[in-house]
Amino acid sequence: MLVINLKSYIETIGKGGSELLEAAEKVAEEYGINIVIAPQFTDIYLLAKNAKKVKIFAQHIDPIEPGAYTGYILPEAVKEAGAVGTLINHSEKPMKIIDIEKAINIARRLGLITIVCANDEIVGAAVAKLNPDYVAVEPPELIGTGISVSTAKPEIVINSVKMIKEVNPNVKVLVGAGISNREDVKKALEYGAEGVLLASAVTKAKNFYEKIKELAEGFIR
Amino acid sequence: MLVINLKSYIETIGKGGSELLEAAEKVAEEYGINIVIAPQFTDIYLLAKNAKKVKIFAQHIDPIEPGAYTGYILPEAVKEAGAVGTLINHSEKPMKIIDIEKAINIARRLGLITIVCANDEIVGAAVAKLNPDYVAVEPPELIGTGISVSTAKPEIVINSVKMIKEVNPNVKVLVGAGISNREDVKKALEYGAEGVLLASAVTKAKNFYEKIKELAEGFIR
Amino acid sequence: MLVINLKSYIETIGKGGSELLEAAEKVAEEYGINIVIAPQFTDIYLLAKNAKKVKIFAQHIDPIEPGAYTGYILPEAVKEAGAVGTLINHSEKPMKIIDIEKAINIARRLGLITIVCANDEIVGAAVAKLNPDYVAVEPPELIGTGISVSTAKPEIVINSVKMIKEVNPNVKVLVGAGISNREDVKKALEYGAEGVLLASAVTKAKNFYEKIKELAEGFIR
Amino acid sequence: MLVINLKSYIETIGKGGSELLEAAEKVAEEYGINIVIAPQFTDIYLLAKNAKKVKIFAQHIDPIEPGAYTGYILPEAVKEAGAVGTLINHSEKPMKIIDIEKAINIARRLGLITIVCANDEIVGAAVAKLNPDYVAVEPPELIGTGISVSTAKPEIVINSVKMIKEVNPNVKVLVGAGISNREDVKKALEYGAEGVLLASAVTKAKNFYEKIKELAEGFIR
Repeated sequence: MLVINLKSYIETIGKGGSELLEAAEKVAEEYGINIVIAPQFTDIYLLAKNAKKVKIFAQHIDPIEPGAYTGYILPEAVKEAGAVGTLINHSEKPMKIIDIEKAINIARRLGLITIVCANDEIVGAAVAKLNPDYVAVEPPELIGTGISVSTAKPEIVINSVKMIKEVNPNVKVLVGAGISNREDVKKALEYGAEGVLLASAVTKAKNFYEKIKELAEGFIR
Repeated sequence: MLVINLKSYIETIGKGGSELLEAAEKVAEEYGINIVIAPQFTDIYLLAKNAKKVKIFAQHIDPIEPGAYTGYILPEAVKEAGAVGTLINHSEKPMKIIDIEKAINIARRLGLITIVCANDEIVGAAVAKLNPDYVAVEPPELIGTGISVSTAKPEIVINSVKMIKEVNPNVKVLVGAGISNREDVKKALEYGAEGVLLASAVTKAKNFYEKIKELAEGFIR
Repeated sequence: MLVINLKSYIETIGKGGSELLEAAEKVAEEYGINIVIAPQFTDIYLLAKNAKKVKIFAQHIDPIEPGAYTGYILPEAVKEAGAVGTLINHSEKPMKIIDIEKAINIARRLGLITIVCANDEIVGAAVAKLNPDYVAVEPPELIGTGISVSTAKPEIVINSVKMIKEVNPNVKVLVGAGISNREDVKKALEYGAEGVLLASAVTKAKNFYEKIKELAEGFIR
Repeated sequence: MLVINLKSYIETIGKGGSELLEAAEKVAEEYGINIVIAPQFTDIYLLAKNAKKVKIFAQHIDPIEPGAYTGYILPEAVKEAGAVGTLINHSEKPMKIIDIEKAINIARRLGLITIVCANDEIVGAAVAKLNPDYVAVEPPELIGTGISVSTAKPEIVINSVKMIKEVNPNVKVLVGAGISNREDVKKALEYGAEGVLLASAVTKAKNFYEKIKELAEGFIR
């Protein structure tokens, strides 16, 4: 699984997001890999409507039931708009542990796939205990640097897989931070990860299709 | 101005929001009044695409510039999706004062209309100094009660108008909390408010059109 | 271990806290049990200076290194004032999971004992992975009710002990919420807990000594 | 008034804070100026007990009434420990505007002097409306730089005094950020400020007495 997080980048809101989706669809078709795009909340509806093979995720959900919450992200609204999953606890949107648990439980009830992010393998193992679908380990100090976790710190990938599976073998393990080319993806998978999370390497790319294709090739053995 | 805040109510996400918009459009057309709808972020795009006279606002924006912010509400994305304004500092999403200032300044630069909420007339006067387009005074203890600020506490309306205009005569004054019928709207305007904010009275109404029409009649002298 | 959390109760700041400490010292002496008092930060110094057998803990520490942080709780300052441990992630002061990890690591480096609170057995097991000294499971819905977790929900005690030890056998397990008399303590220990956390049962007691003595008797087999 | 904020600096917890107090007392005696020290919460008791002319303030209070709040700063506890005032909304501990209002009101009821911090003159004028005793304008981008607001940006001092007094003539105006020597203090007062706030210039000084004396001389016309 290749997860592309659009964050709050200006290049990929609105029309830019639609172009990125189109490129991702083409690659997903050609390479048969699983691609997820997590856009701004306001772009979920339009992207989800046009997505075929690519899955649209939210970047976050608030751990609330429907009601009088102004300015919150209602999980039901995210689903209604067409998202099929969500990131939870990204290092740029860290959550209280009790809220991580609530968000996972709400998502499961609604049938939303959950990717819970963790800053290291120990926190990764801790959140695996809360039973999400995926745990994504991303050392915050490498995010956005272009220095890939899988190339620069393979032990984090290896330990994450080991520790998370030990706690909860049902959880799939992703890694992220600094991943920007084919080699980074390849190594992440070699060391046991089941997918990768990335953002600026794609959103800031001159050519979305070429970059996503390059990354997809990292998945081919 | 009649501002309808859809909060995180389940009745008005997706299709429900579209029906509410349709009812609001009809009333706006018939009564010539200004109506604003503030839906979940995920519904801004679809509602804004279909809105004619009615204006679509966000319920909140984060005070950020484009960049690596996962799970945030980028003001540019809200605008791109079709919103023409935003609530700021709703009592259910209270903000640090420095962030209120930043959010107002970003919104102004992007041409988004700002309604800054305040819990009482003193805070109302304080935020008026930050130069938003509107200040909406809503005593949190009355929100969702059906006991209207304008009927039960007219002095709050009168003082809010007086104190806010004194600090900044350019700011328009709205009031809210518990407003649910024609009489509540009428009194709010009599006491000097230039519009009202409400939520559950409309979102929980059996018939959106009938309820919005009743409230609109409160605007007719 | 009997942990008495003074929270922000007015009865036990300043002089009230000193009286409570005196009563606790007497009981600790007579019954040979381990008693911890967690007062307001401002009372740590005076209580720690007068404590003999009783241990003084902070109610919280911020996960920071010394520096330009105004209004924060510096772990080094808490230690310097005489605290020998700290609560972390109490349900009234919930923390981000990354901050729980940081706080535990800082405390360990400084030699402060850590009690990490959790709202249920699953979160209890998750935080056990972060390697604190103690995990205290306290269902928030029972806190302050006088309905004891050990009497009303023994399965929570039993499962907490089982699940936490499974993840990390070095972690000691406390339980709390609603514990207010000898029987509640006795049952908590019978079901496998190694101590209890409580607050209002002691701080609101007419006679600190009598109440602490009663609770201490729950520890005697 | 010369306000020395000890933040979370390691040099001025415990014994270091007592030495700083001693130096400040000597200067206050010699120069007849008003000095405030705002230490870590855990040091309030000991410093307040030994303070004579110098006043001890808290760095923050939580806007709460006594009750079940673990890990909070109860205003009554801060007062009981000997503080006579408090900072509110420091840029390193920014608060929601509704909480600033609550904190000011609680402090007034308890007889605690309030210094509300603001990042610029506009926010300064806004919070002046909430009726604190002092407003301290501190541009965050200059804090800790050694580039003094009064030397580098005199217009901020001048405008702050003008705008704050216009909104509320009862409020006294302090300025801060980068103030580190006699000249910086002198200019701040010349431009209309009634005192200054500083931190690292004193806490990191080799000789507390010499540095505080130098700053005090800035007050002498």
